[in-house]
Amino acid sequence: MVEYNAPKRDYDFLLNEVLNVIPTIQKLGFSEFDKEFLSMLTEGWGEHVKEVWHPINQLGDREGLEFNNGEITMPKEFKDAYRESVDAGWLSTSCKPEHGGMGVPILFQSVIWAEFGTSANMALSVLPALTIGVYDILAEHGEQELVNYFAKNLASGEWAGTMCLTEPHAGTDLGIISTKAVPQDDGTYLVTGTKIFITYGEHDLTENIVHLVLAKTPNSPEGTKGISLFLVPKFMPSEWKSEGLAGMTDELNSEHNGVTCSGSEEKMGVHASPTCVMNFDQSVGWRVGDLYSGMPLMFEMMNRERLATGMMGIGLAEIAYQNALAWAKERRQGRDLKGVQEPNELADNILVHPDVRRMLLVAKVNNEGCRALAAWTGLLLDQRRSDDKEEAEMANSLVALFTPIVKAHFTDLGCETVSTCMQVMGGAGYCTEYGVEQFYRDVRISKIWEGTNGIQALDLAGRKVTEKLGKNLRYILWPLTDFINENKSNPQMTEFNKPLHQGVRGLQQLTLQMIAEGQSNPHFLAAGATDYCRYFGNVLLAYMWARIAKVCLDKQDDQYYVAKLASARFFFKRIFPETLGLAAKIQAGHKTLMDYPLEMM
Amino acid sequence: MVEYNAPKRDYDFLLNEVLNVIPTIQKLGFSEFDKEFLSMLTEGWGEHVKEVWHPINQLGDREGLEFNNGEITMPKEFKDAYRESVDAGWLSTSCKPEHGGMGVPILFQSVIWAEFGTSANMALSVLPALTIGVYDILAEHGEQELVNYFAKNLASGEWAGTMCLTEPHAGTDLGIISTKAVPQDDGTYLVTGTKIFITYGEHDLTENIVHLVLAKTPNSPEGTKGISLFLVPKFMPSEWKSEGLAGMTDELNSEHNGVTCSGSEEKMGVHASPTCVMNFDQSVGWRVGDLYSGMPLMFEMMNRERLATGMMGIGLAEIAYQNALAWAKERRQGRDLKGVQEPNELADNILVHPDVRRMLLVAKVNNEGCRALAAWTGLLLDQRRSDDKEEAEMANSLVALFTPIVKAHFTDLGCETVSTCMQVMGGAGYCTEYGVEQFYRDVRISKIWEGTNGIQALDLAGRKVTEKLGKNLRYILWPLTDFINENKSNPQMTEFNKPLHQGVRGLQQLTLQMIAEGQSNPHFLAAGATDYCRYFGNVLLAYMWARIAKVCLDKQDDQYYVAKLASARFFFKRIFPETLGLAAKIQAGHKTLMDYPLEMM
Repeated sequence: MVEYNAPKRDYDFLLNEVLNVIPTIQKLGFSEFDKEFLSMLTEGWGEHVKEVWHPINQLGDREGLEFNNGEITMPKEFKDAYRESVDAGWLSTSCKPEHGGMGVPILFQSVIWAEFGTSANMALSVLPALTIGVYDILAEHGEQELVNYFAKNLASGEWAGTMCLTEPHAGTDLGIISTKAVPQDDGTYLVTGTKIFITYGEHDLTENIVHLVLAKTPNSPEGTKGISLFLVPKFMPSEWKSEGLAGMTDELNSEHNGVTCSGSEEKMGVHASPTCVMNFDQSVGWRVGDLYSGMPLMFEMMNRERLATGMMGIGLAEIAYQNALAWAKERRQGRDLKGVQEPNELADNILVHPDVRRMLLVAKVNNEGCRALAAWTGLLLDQRRSDDKEEAEMANSLVALFTPIVKAHFTDLGCETVSTCMQVMGGAGYCTEYGVEQFYRDVRISKIWEGTNGIQALDLAGRKVTEKLGKNLRYILWPLTDFINENKSNPQMTEFNKPLHQGVRGLQQLTLQMIAEGQSNPHFLAAGATDYCRYFGNVLLAYMWARIAKVCLDKQDDQYYVAKLASARFFFKRIFPETLGLAAKIQAGHKTLMDYPLEMM
Repeated sequence: MVEYNAPKRDYDFLLNEVLNVIPTIQKLGFSEFDKEFLSMLTEGWGEHVKEVWHPINQLGDREGLEFNNGEITMPKEFKDAYRESVDAGWLSTSCKPEHGGMGVPILFQSVIWAEFGTSANMALSVLPALTIGVYDILAEHGEQELVNYFAKNLASGEWAGTMCLTEPHAGTDLGIISTKAVPQDDGTYLVTGTKIFITYGEHDLTENIVHLVLAKTPNSPEGTKGISLFLVPKFMPSEWKSEGLAGMTDELNSEHNGVTCSGSEEKMGVHASPTCVMNFDQSVGWRVGDLYSGMPLMFEMMNRERLATGMMGIGLAEIAYQNALAWAKERRQGRDLKGVQEPNELADNILVHPDVRRMLLVAKVNNEGCRALAAWTGLLLDQRRSDDKEEAEMANSLVALFTPIVKAHFTDLGCETVSTCMQVMGGAGYCTEYGVEQFYRDVRISKIWEGTNGIQALDLAGRKVTEKLGKNLRYILWPLTDFINENKSNPQMTEFNKPLHQGVRGLQQLTLQMIAEGQSNPHFLAAGATDYCRYFGNVLLAYMWARIAKVCLDKQDDQYYVAKLASARFFFKRIFPETLGLAAKIQAGHKTLMDYPLEMM
């Protein structure tokens, strides 16, 4: 029943006509990366997930996984699909050619790959997304011997990766973890402890699983400052005898490296994505990066996964929208309030009803807006590696600022959008047969994964906005102010530029207030963080829509651009006004929260 | 794991201290209904569902029902619990004593019964709620012979009832149904047709199931004007031979009356509430009410069910809140931003974090506010039957106006609240073990059942506000204006009265604009309906909070009232400001919706 078509045209439009990415990307060293290649990649990946991943998405939800004696068996169809993707090279697009990767810009992997993959099969998409994260940390910070042994198999997807952070008593607060890593004479560590909520901690899609584990060494400083990062494989090389990895083959020891899975959570959605309790018992591991650098390294990977999680919001919202729209186009109920549209039919199509259109357009326009901001963020990820220091600094600053917003706002909107799409379908939306209810369950985890959205908001308001004396913020206020000034004298742009200007002014005022009040009372800042993050997200989307509108104003002889301009109008009239209420809530401060008698909650 | 305690104190407070219901109810003829009896009922029902219904709620979700050869088998535990409730008389509280009922005010059944029942076990609560709806229609409009035969067994819950409206092509739009009812010489009808989405259409909790079926008689007028209502039992009396029901015993024919269940929907939640495809094949039925009066009668029942569905929003939000709070009280992560609170612990309790409090208070305060408005609505249901014509007219007007708001706003908030409570719990919230994910799935249907929330909003904006030349609206504006004026000179009330006043002024302006613009273009009104309904809901909640605040201002030596006043403050500072954005969206009108190029959606 459920259908999916990757929104390729949207990416062509955004990347070429709005962001003009190719010259920037070529300057970054991808000299042969042109429009045609990008288009081919986008189309190829869209086709691949449509044909290979999407058809087994409902099956994954229904069958889920089997947990038996510490082993997790995935549905056979998942194994076949994963194999097909590995063989086709689709899991290594952004990895270095020296490790067998395609070496294309991160933009592709972090945005287009992520959106299409999660739309088609969120449960399956999570594994390669994690593996790439592990690969990146290893390739960037691992010692040569480790890289030599692990990078190639991680890049291809032959082996998989995980992030092991959370412990039963330590989720958001990693400073209190108790997993230990004891150094050995040969330079390895023996890692012991229990980690929970480990996505794909155990499964049979790959021969080996490479865990990145946060742990504390003996006598390490307290809190997050004493944490280091360790690479711990499920299986060791068959010949390994404490003499280093050099010369070791991919042949693996049949006995596991003290790494066992003692349970798998039953959960509301993503049934085909294992969520494991992992035990490490004197497991051999190697430190990655410096001693006590565990947190910054993990954040590096985590930030990557935060963007990936944000893309899940768009991905699920997009496929939900496509299915609700298809359903609406077939459904006839009632008559147009302005008069019968199709007298020969028992009823008019439900798209004549303003409220049905409202629901579908909120979904569509939020998806399109988020996609635009995601595309820009993807480009910035590549620009961070620029040799031009100023470009790199700008990119680093904006990525730092955008990461919590992409994670929190996109997943909040994603959950709302899937719900709205379900609502369009009425009772059918709630029934398993039509598929949207799976998206509703699956997408909900995205607000929790990789730091809850409340944590994202605190990261934005309490850290990203203020750090480096507000430099991150200035890097977005500059282009915003330039854009607003450039378009002030263009009457066609007024309907977009004016509310954008108001939104930016509001953002500046709220930011000043948050910082000023927050200095005397950090509760003020924390109390407003969630609404501030949503306000900020709205302003960034407004900026994207104003830029899109500008591009489309001159191209109104093509319906594609007519619709994009209409989307921009819808955004400013029907979505952006929520900033009014958000501002009032932020300004209300912390008193009504913190004065509430705790024992009466 | 999941716990539940019925919020009895809140109802005692609302009914006695805010609404002072007892004198009003006694004047309506319930002369022996006093505070103590109400309190005893509330406590008794709260205990009953806690002990009998709640413990099997998760089991119902996991085991669900079995559909085999047209028969639905419910979990044995559900049969036992249902039996226990029938035997204890809990399913017939509002039924007439002459039919074996308790004869207590509808207020109890429609509000307190509904909230506690859905909190404890939504899937089970639906059946008696429907049965009571069928009983009420029958007792009010059925011919004496029908009442004599069916009323007693429906009142007790020995037999169950259903509403059969929807057909595959006709949901919102009932005018196009094709089920036929052909009159017979003996005064009965033979009913033939297919109905879908029939809640508890088939099950084995009761010996007989009494269906109220919408159908068209031969040569009836087109559209909804030609619809009549028929009572069609699953089984006929064993002795029945077309000679009327007089003298028939409860002994039933073992062959069904042409009523079969051909399928049961697999759905996201309420797994232990069957959703059936029902086929009527020359099934013997009796007309209830006049020919062609099917729609008004069904609306009478539907409106009752709409309020019941609204209560599901509160019910599920309440139990989700209780569990999120219990979880939060045990959870320690991070430190208070203003300084360590519990140095001897690894981390502070998460209630020190403003954002955690914000989430829990949004949940708590919305639950409390909705409960207050529900309690008032419940009282109005009884007042509709007053001998005092003016009281009855006031009550009828306000119930007409409040019904779509209670249905739509409470269920919108209910879904949001359960999601917020899940968010408080992080990953645990998403795992089956902790129970909240079931509430998240279950509560979602409430936005769809008994007319989607979009339909409720249209009913409010397009019918309830304008009908009878705006009389419904005047009946709420009068007490609102009186209250605002009364409290203008009370400085302690300013923080509540002033925003309430602004909200009411905004409501008046928006209403005028909706009507004025809507006259020239009904799309304007329809485009703003959903946001208008939410705006209106906020104003009603603001009124309840201002009234609550007034009661509590003088009682600040008791923490219960301190907390209630704090809740009122939270509402006005942190929830009510969303009206600012809603107003702007309503005023944006229909253009961005209706001008959107349809083929590009």
